[in-house]
Amino acid sequence: MSGFDAPPDTRSLSTLIQALRRLPGVGQKSAQRMAFHLLQHDRTGAQELAQALQQAVQHLRHCQQCHTFTEQALCQVCQDEGRDGSRLCVLETPADQAAMERTGAFHGRYFVLMGRLSPLDGVGPRDIGMQQLLQRACDGQVQEVILATSFTAEGEATAHALTEALTRRGLQVTRLARGVPVGSELEFVDLGTIAHALADRR
Amino acid sequence: MSGFDAPPDTRSLSTLIQALRRLPGVGQKSAQRMAFHLLQHDRTGAQELAQALQQAVQHLRHCQQCHTFTEQALCQVCQDEGRDGSRLCVLETPADQAAMERTGAFHGRYFVLMGRLSPLDGVGPRDIGMQQLLQRACDGQVQEVILATSFTAEGEATAHALTEALTRRGLQVTRLARGVPVGSELEFVDLGTIAHALADRR
Repeated sequence: MSGFDAPPDTRSLSTLIQALRRLPGVGQKSAQRMAFHLLQHDRTGAQELAQALQQAVQHLRHCQQCHTFTEQALCQVCQDEGRDGSRLCVLETPADQAAMERTGAFHGRYFVLMGRLSPLDGVGPRDIGMQQLLQRACDGQVQEVILATSFTAEGEATAHALTEALTRRGLQVTRLARGVPVGSELEFVDLGTIAHALADRR
Repeated sequence: MSGFDAPPDTRSLSTLIQALRRLPGVGQKSAQRMAFHLLQHDRTGAQELAQALQQAVQHLRHCQQCHTFTEQALCQVCQDEGRDGSRLCVLETPADQAAMERTGAFHGRYFVLMGRLSPLDGVGPRDIGMQQLLQRACDGQVQEVILATSFTAEGEATAHALTEALTRRGLQVTRLARGVPVGSELEFVDLGTIAHALADRR
């Protein structure tokens, strides 16, 4: 099945379907459905999406200090002089950073990897700005690096690699605690988590 | 969880995420992943998508005769004078039409509903161009209307409604045959299909 073979008078439709396929997790079928939906029911949405894409590509760059997306040279958090420069929290995405900020429990600084190590997908140390992180962590102020990458296989591997590189430079490295999520009944928590919570009991 | 709360210096990022959420099947999480991916790894792709969206919205309209997407007043198939005007095949999407064309077994004309009746989603007769189809089918040339909507609940309901309206106007209406797919072993075919194939045996 070759999917949708567009006749020559619908070239802009097949171009759109191809462009939508470049989105992660979108195959031929979903791309068709998206294209048909936008053209049939939501042309305003299509135009708004086109504009949002152009604006984002034009205005967003990486923060010089923490590597997250920002429209300025330094992001809001890095500009805030009231934050504790001795603690550096390392996360995978701006969304993770936003979650950490919402807790209100962390007042230090951040470094956002914008990804995680994933050799199978060709994501290596350079893609997650490892060098920049090491430079950032060795600024003389940072005393503790808190690794807050995901507790997935790739997140753990990333944390492991970062721990090695950071401790080699004499930095104190900690990792978010693993344990039973707040509000959950033990019966429904997976066994690995319970075992970790038991080992790290306090 | 309110998802990604963008700080004010990343407004174009949150605008992009909101715009991506208007795509069918895309929630907050996927929209974030798409936005991060495009901005981090595929800015060319983002620009191409923006351009493709604008081009498609600008150039694609509905064929005056068969209702499919085309960049001209009449689509390629409707322009082709060699086709048999006495048979009209009714389909749900341009992709279905392309599949039918690829069979090489149909030489009549088409009408593309650009959807199917789905009262729960608010898709009524007007949204699938029922009125246009009735007008088209009563042009005096069409003798047989072949309903090739999907064999799903919604596709069947659409076929049922169309059959009623078309036969009331004295047109001959047929439906694609249900049966065992070519190349499949009976053991693995669902029972409803086998029952239908048995009833329609020839």
